[in-house]
Amino acid sequence: MKKSENKPVKIIPLGGLEQIGMNITAIEYEDSIIVIDCGLSFPEDEMLGIDLVIPDVTYLKENADKVKGMVVTHGHEDHIGAIPYIEKELDIPIYTTRLTMALIEHKLEEHNILNDVRRKVVKHGQIINLGCFRIEFIRTNHSIVDAAALAIYTPAGILVHTGDFKVDFTPVFGEAIDLPRFGELGKKGVLALMADSTNVERPGYTQSEKTVGKTFDNLFADNKEHRIIIATFASNVDRVQQIINSAYKYGRKVIVEGRSMVNVINTASELGYINIPDNTLIEIERINDYPDEQIVLITTGSQGENMAALSRIAASLHNRVSIKPGDVVIFSSNPIPGNEKAVFKVINELEMKGAHVIFQDTHVSGHACQEELKLMYALTKPKYAIPVHGEYRHLKRHAELAIEMGVPKENVKILSTGDVLEIADDIFRTAGRVPAQGILVDGLGVGDVGNIVLRDRQQLSQNGLIIVVVTLGHEGGYLVAGPDIVSRGFVYVRESENLIDDCRDVVMDVLEDCFARNITDWNRIKNSIRDELGDFLWKKMKRSPMILPIITEV
Amino acid sequence: MKKSENKPVKIIPLGGLEQIGMNITAIEYEDSIIVIDCGLSFPEDEMLGIDLVIPDVTYLKENADKVKGMVVTHGHEDHIGAIPYIEKELDIPIYTTRLTMALIEHKLEEHNILNDVRRKVVKHGQIINLGCFRIEFIRTNHSIVDAAALAIYTPAGILVHTGDFKVDFTPVFGEAIDLPRFGELGKKGVLALMADSTNVERPGYTQSEKTVGKTFDNLFADNKEHRIIIATFASNVDRVQQIINSAYKYGRKVIVEGRSMVNVINTASELGYINIPDNTLIEIERINDYPDEQIVLITTGSQGENMAALSRIAASLHNRVSIKPGDVVIFSSNPIPGNEKAVFKVINELEMKGAHVIFQDTHVSGHACQEELKLMYALTKPKYAIPVHGEYRHLKRHAELAIEMGVPKENVKILSTGDVLEIADDIFRTAGRVPAQGILVDGLGVGDVGNIVLRDRQQLSQNGLIIVVVTLGHEGGYLVAGPDIVSRGFVYVRESENLIDDCRDVVMDVLEDCFARNITDWNRIKNSIRDELGDFLWKKMKRSPMILPIITEV
Repeated sequence: MKKSENKPVKIIPLGGLEQIGMNITAIEYEDSIIVIDCGLSFPEDEMLGIDLVIPDVTYLKENADKVKGMVVTHGHEDHIGAIPYIEKELDIPIYTTRLTMALIEHKLEEHNILNDVRRKVVKHGQIINLGCFRIEFIRTNHSIVDAAALAIYTPAGILVHTGDFKVDFTPVFGEAIDLPRFGELGKKGVLALMADSTNVERPGYTQSEKTVGKTFDNLFADNKEHRIIIATFASNVDRVQQIINSAYKYGRKVIVEGRSMVNVINTASELGYINIPDNTLIEIERINDYPDEQIVLITTGSQGENMAALSRIAASLHNRVSIKPGDVVIFSSNPIPGNEKAVFKVINELEMKGAHVIFQDTHVSGHACQEELKLMYALTKPKYAIPVHGEYRHLKRHAELAIEMGVPKENVKILSTGDVLEIADDIFRTAGRVPAQGILVDGLGVGDVGNIVLRDRQQLSQNGLIIVVVTLGHEGGYLVAGPDIVSRGFVYVRESENLIDDCRDVVMDVLEDCFARNITDWNRIKNSIRDELGDFLWKKMKRSPMILPIITEV
Repeated sequence: MKKSENKPVKIIPLGGLEQIGMNITAIEYEDSIIVIDCGLSFPEDEMLGIDLVIPDVTYLKENADKVKGMVVTHGHEDHIGAIPYIEKELDIPIYTTRLTMALIEHKLEEHNILNDVRRKVVKHGQIINLGCFRIEFIRTNHSIVDAAALAIYTPAGILVHTGDFKVDFTPVFGEAIDLPRFGELGKKGVLALMADSTNVERPGYTQSEKTVGKTFDNLFADNKEHRIIIATFASNVDRVQQIINSAYKYGRKVIVEGRSMVNVINTASELGYINIPDNTLIEIERINDYPDEQIVLITTGSQGENMAALSRIAASLHNRVSIKPGDVVIFSSNPIPGNEKAVFKVINELEMKGAHVIFQDTHVSGHACQEELKLMYALTKPKYAIPVHGEYRHLKRHAELAIEMGVPKENVKILSTGDVLEIADDIFRTAGRVPAQGILVDGLGVGDVGNIVLRDRQQLSQNGLIIVVVTLGHEGGYLVAGPDIVSRGFVYVRESENLIDDCRDVVMDVLEDCFARNITDWNRIKNSIRDELGDFLWKKMKRSPMILPIITEV
């Protein structure tokens, strides 16, 4: 493939840069577009009632005829979670490795669209052709197996996208990251490197997943008389493998609990990514058939998620498992920022019931620290650097690291979601933006909750509401019924009857004033009620409930 | 004072044990009660719209004639914040050290009750008499000056309450903790030790506050060309002192910004607890009279609090300060669990505007780590240990540490808020409970928001509401107006007109069915509307808005 002179390839992140999650990037050259990943993110605190956030793919829809395919780096929610939503709107064939594909297929099945989506499993080392692009899947290590980096051969040069990666010389399953191939690409000449920024603030190297196995062995040896419960990420197959190894070694049966974990482990097991000795795994129904010291329960809920198995166990809401004094509960995870309080709440509940909680030293990250990132730069020697996968503070540290590794300052760019970056040997510029606001999903509704609805929920959540119902006679001018005052989420009404009476008096005064001045415009009457009652309540209580006047005419 | 045989003293924590904050403990013996501290806590995430939580002092009110006084260990919100609320209900004289008293007085003034409250300043080493108790204030170190531990001489023996403390051999202001006195008490015989559990999970020693001063010096030396902005806790006078020292050394003017910080610094300055060289402090209005490299701005907002100065600066909402590229922003703090996301948001905003954010190594804790706690046990050699000031997980670790330090297992007790502990030489038992639920404060309302209101706010925040207004003819049986459907926080209605029409049809069917079956009981009609419409929306959208049928009769 020859480079065409001065014709840039476009890199368009459609998500994933301002906040962790929702990773999706479009790569475009003339009539070809490929999509890298298609993740979801979980709602910010202020997105009340929202279940999840998916990327806005307006740009892909507008260019649907150009979109040749989607290449997926690994099977985490923030990289595959939005695929079913997007496939309902756009018919994009999917290319990825075996486990990742199996996890995607499970999602497509849940959405009843498995047969509608074209799919092709790709092996590490394999190269596929999509439009004018060739894409090579390169083996990496991560906290889920079958992760891949991508080398994208474009007419403008080679782009390397690491996906989420770490360097694990001694992985639990399969082989170490294909470092030599990154070196080869570096020798060929890499136009731009898009690398994982998650751990860029951490110096040194991320430890091998295998180190956790040794810790488990020690913990199993130290706690031979107790039941062991271990919470970890549902998708960390290698972690589960190591727990199973320790369990087998110490003669314990293993129970896997939590829907998402059961799903991942079943899938991994069917595909041969996890090795479970015969008679080791038992169903949760049989938990009481064995003495405590012969049981390991592996469960979801390591982030303190409300509905996850461990949280339900801790809160005595689980129908099969209750904590007994002496139980050893191991959190094989670190809290993701924002989850600390929820995690500590679960720990407190477990310890109040007599469990011994072990919270440290049983987790390693799946993301590259500074020295691994430097290694990636040293091998690929990119002309341009585009940090991906992180909040702004990560992207900025990553930019500094790239410069430290010899990428000229002017060849490093921190993009925002929606930016269009044009890049060629002698071109490196942002050229416009495309729509890329996240789309809010609430229940089955996709995009039907926007800022107005969220603002209302915010006000309702802080102050509740007061409904004022007034029935006016035909053509207004006199009162037939009401004013009735109904409140929710405001004050405990039975103890505040005087307050409700006072509110009714305020509204009465407004109405009489309107009648006296022959005001019959409902909007004016409603506004007056809102203003006067709002004033009254603020002065009296320093609160601002939503006030909703409802006028009926008979 | 002679020990009476077998008559126990009661220790009653009225707050502060299940969650950090709201520290208040009653000590009772016959006709004497004293209160230790009276703090507030900030609302849990699920306490929507609540401003703060104060302790329930029903027990003190019921025994008002016994309450001899309140002794306060130091001036942090979680130890003094609820004093004005409690003093409005109970007339309790306050005894504490100078700076602590000044901070309390500021609060009483804000609540317009300064002259109604009896107060007496106590010096370290001084002993006061309250009822049958003698209370000695012992110097400690903490992240606010003038902190004290209490030795409470009761007829049943000596209780030692550490307050919040650390061991700082080289404090910035004043002297090191009075370790010899704790040793003397140990030799006399300490019945029970109530010690700070906050940092019990951390091994080793807490560093001296002075170490932070050296870090500031280094940072000032490294950033001579840039404006420096430092965020820290408003009440950490020693931290501010050290920033001022570095500023003076490097020829910078100091601006203090943020209401609470200005208040604390003014108070500390008036009392001589902080030493500010002449012409060093300037008003924020003069920020532009000096070049950037001659300015240090010390500000609130180190926890990412929405309305604090630094958050407003980061969001370009501050009227005097905007971030310029090159500004150096130092977080001299660690995020309190739960605040991480808010802090990271502020950091991202600052860095997007070109600031260089320094987030590590400029903070030391104010609480004792494991070795300091062990030292406290080694000096006081208590017969009984009652861990205080922490979540359950802290209290439990602390109990383990006490046992490790030689306190017999059966002499260590983890209390819950509201427990009544009876303690004497040969008595150590919980005997009943007193009311001790936190009281929610929302605006000016104290205790008028309870579980029902919070549950409504929760539902409203997640799913919004639908109001169904129906006007029926006299004695029911036929429809005069409506059904009208009004929604808030549910879906964006203009794009969902069909949905609203469908809702109206569902209600119409319910009404016709009711009319046909001669159902005129409004509650039955309302329940049918709620059930049918709820079912319809769940099936269609997997959402559960609050449904509020309002029936008017004309």
